[in-house]
Amino acid sequence: MKLEKLVGDRFRERPSDCVVDSHALMVRGGYLKNVASGIFSSYTPLKRVTGKIERIIREEMDAIDGQEVQFPVVMPASLWQESGRYESIGREMARFHDRSGNALVLGMTHEEAAVQLVRDCVRSYSEYPFMIYQIQTKFRDEARPRAGLIRVREFTMKDAYSFHTSQADLEKYYERCHKAYERIYARAGLPEVVSVAADSGMMGGNVSHEFMLLTPVGEDSIVMCRECDYRANREAAEQCGFDMVREGGICPRCGKPAITISRGIEVGNIFQLGTKYTRSMNMTYIDQNGEVQYPVMGCYGIGIGRLAASICEAHHDEYGPIWPLAVAPWQVHLCAVRSDDMQVKAYADKLYVDLQSRGVEVIYDDRQVSAGVMFSDADLLGVPFRVIVSPRNRRQNMVEIVSRDRCFSANAPMEAAAEAIWKILSENAL
Amino acid sequence: MKLEKLVGDRFRERPSDCVVDSHALMVRGGYLKNVASGIFSSYTPLKRVTGKIERIIREEMDAIDGQEVQFPVVMPASLWQESGRYESIGREMARFHDRSGNALVLGMTHEEAAVQLVRDCVRSYSEYPFMIYQIQTKFRDEARPRAGLIRVREFTMKDAYSFHTSQADLEKYYERCHKAYERIYARAGLPEVVSVAADSGMMGGNVSHEFMLLTPVGEDSIVMCRECDYRANREAAEQCGFDMVREGGICPRCGKPAITISRGIEVGNIFQLGTKYTRSMNMTYIDQNGEVQYPVMGCYGIGIGRLAASICEAHHDEYGPIWPLAVAPWQVHLCAVRSDDMQVKAYADKLYVDLQSRGVEVIYDDRQVSAGVMFSDADLLGVPFRVIVSPRNRRQNMVEIVSRDRCFSANAPMEAAAEAIWKILSENAL
Repeated sequence: MKLEKLVGDRFRERPSDCVVDSHALMVRGGYLKNVASGIFSSYTPLKRVTGKIERIIREEMDAIDGQEVQFPVVMPASLWQESGRYESIGREMARFHDRSGNALVLGMTHEEAAVQLVRDCVRSYSEYPFMIYQIQTKFRDEARPRAGLIRVREFTMKDAYSFHTSQADLEKYYERCHKAYERIYARAGLPEVVSVAADSGMMGGNVSHEFMLLTPVGEDSIVMCRECDYRANREAAEQCGFDMVREGGICPRCGKPAITISRGIEVGNIFQLGTKYTRSMNMTYIDQNGEVQYPVMGCYGIGIGRLAASICEAHHDEYGPIWPLAVAPWQVHLCAVRSDDMQVKAYADKLYVDLQSRGVEVIYDDRQVSAGVMFSDADLLGVPFRVIVSPRNRRQNMVEIVSRDRCFSANAPMEAAAEAIWKILSENAL
Repeated sequence: MKLEKLVGDRFRERPSDCVVDSHALMVRGGYLKNVASGIFSSYTPLKRVTGKIERIIREEMDAIDGQEVQFPVVMPASLWQESGRYESIGREMARFHDRSGNALVLGMTHEEAAVQLVRDCVRSYSEYPFMIYQIQTKFRDEARPRAGLIRVREFTMKDAYSFHTSQADLEKYYERCHKAYERIYARAGLPEVVSVAADSGMMGGNVSHEFMLLTPVGEDSIVMCRECDYRANREAAEQCGFDMVREGGICPRCGKPAITISRGIEVGNIFQLGTKYTRSMNMTYIDQNGEVQYPVMGCYGIGIGRLAASICEAHHDEYGPIWPLAVAPWQVHLCAVRSDDMQVKAYADKLYVDLQSRGVEVIYDDRQVSAGVMFSDADLLGVPFRVIVSPRNRRQNMVEIVSRDRCFSANAPMEAAAEAIWKILSENAL
């Protein structure tokens, strides 16, 4: 599309109320707009980024036999009374009454809805295991929304629920999902995400892991060992003993005084839930011996907006985000510098059409503005490859191709530019 | 995917509480599950249908220069106080307070959010016109939800908002959007949808149209003339005079006593809003003469779930939906009849893989159940083409290909079946 028509302001000044770079850059680049505390609208660039993240997640969830479904945002309180969470969850859950006086809630997670959807229709052991997932809006009335998309009240989440006839089968699937999560982060440009134990691993209880992007702006503390592969979040580590939860503390796994503490953003989590929900909500199946059993559940979440912000935290400079190709709002940012030069304009117009006809996603800037304005806008949109058509380049019969991270630049002859750009994209695609 | 693993019950009995066929068939076929009055979860077959409808809508909205954005589900009351609708809308709007006592509402439409998103960033006439749209969950506390997905409380909607510097420009875009809607319905399998005037056309006021699928089970009345192209909904017609709103009444356009009254389901609507929202919410731009002006708005809605139900109403028989190829949950329903025959099973397994490698979406039934159970399940899933592998067919070295509507059947030699099926699909794709 043409940049001239792209709705959303871009500007240079860092907003004073932004405590993390991703928030500041997303405000400066016209990605999001605050509607209320912790509630945002997305402009097109962000919607395109989250759409690509969602596509990656769908592919990986389908690859581990997930079935996409959809649960409601608004649910009857009665469903949450069944599980006991209507009482046990506090003010984070939004509650209201409908016109007939029925108590309703806004979904902040969907274990109850998942059990309600399947409990009447999966009654034989032969139909297990299975996994259902959705990508849907959730609302959690956080006391302290902060850091743009990192901690919000309304958010879009992929949440998945698996059902099994044994703990062993759950553990097998849990491991499969763990690997799918690794593929998701790698494809989205965050291969450095690590998983950390979110349970003590010693105290019994259910197994769970958090996936963490290590970054100083993260709000979670992660306890790691320099000598072995021990990794846990602060809460799980504290259950193992106070001494370890400091720099140089004793690792509970290898016993060496090698504990380090880092900051991280939680970009996903996976839980072994056991039979908590199936028991309380009376979901059963008949096993091979004809006996009634409760299925064992796992659940698996990824917040889409927080992941987008985390990618921006990991990939940006002072001028804007540097989106990895797989999640970039567009693949190519085409700049017609001095578009009042008719030959520049005519050639750039043609290149725009040629690139699109090859399936390339192009944002095209043919505004009559200075190269400085053009390039600072391009920096804020963070598109991986910038293609520059200008009077000088035209005289040399070439276009410039520059990567957003400045690591790559090349010239291509004008008549072969579309082909050259397409090749560069193909080589850079995962 | 394999039918054996598909979550959702299928059964023959028509549920007693279903007043329309689409609701009954979607319950019988494992498409949806009631969660509360007018609130449903979707199983995978419905999610796949609505996903395909959403893709068609996105393509057509992008083709008329729409920019996809996302507004929140939860909005502050203050936004609706600006437009005056916090007071003017009644109990259909869900309201609650957050933990800090701030009044919030659930979006039932997003004019306020659209104006809030763009009013600070589109200030020059040169940036007009533009259109933004989203596909998002909405909640409307209907007094009487009914007919499955036809009238619900929670629904997914495509809502679009265009902004213009003149009424003439709005009218031009309105016409363009009208044509895009016709393409959407045609591509989704409902070329018979008609647009009707939803305003009097005589009483002044704003122009709007509703898109109607004519069907006896519709809850709207449509007044049409047998002699000319007059078409209006009942409310608009009544504003033109009582006499016309009966069979044989006088047409207000051609004057002949040729009025007929039909029933229809509203599957979309488009409105010329004027400056109602831009004035009340103080959105302005600077025109060519440097003067401050209010932009003129249009808005354009399509309910996704209701459209899916309407397609089912228009395309079904007593055994199940007959999904048009473009919106079908899968393209091919592969039945391995007598899958205990190892040769049948081995061949069907291979055909399943071959079809998928050609990009065909296949639901594969290799359960050891009778052909009767297999075919009645296939009828309920309504996949356009059924491919039958059986011992008898195998002895004749062929597979049977039958369309769900029984209008087409063919045999293909086993070794060339994947290719033959792929060709049939290509020829039937729009």
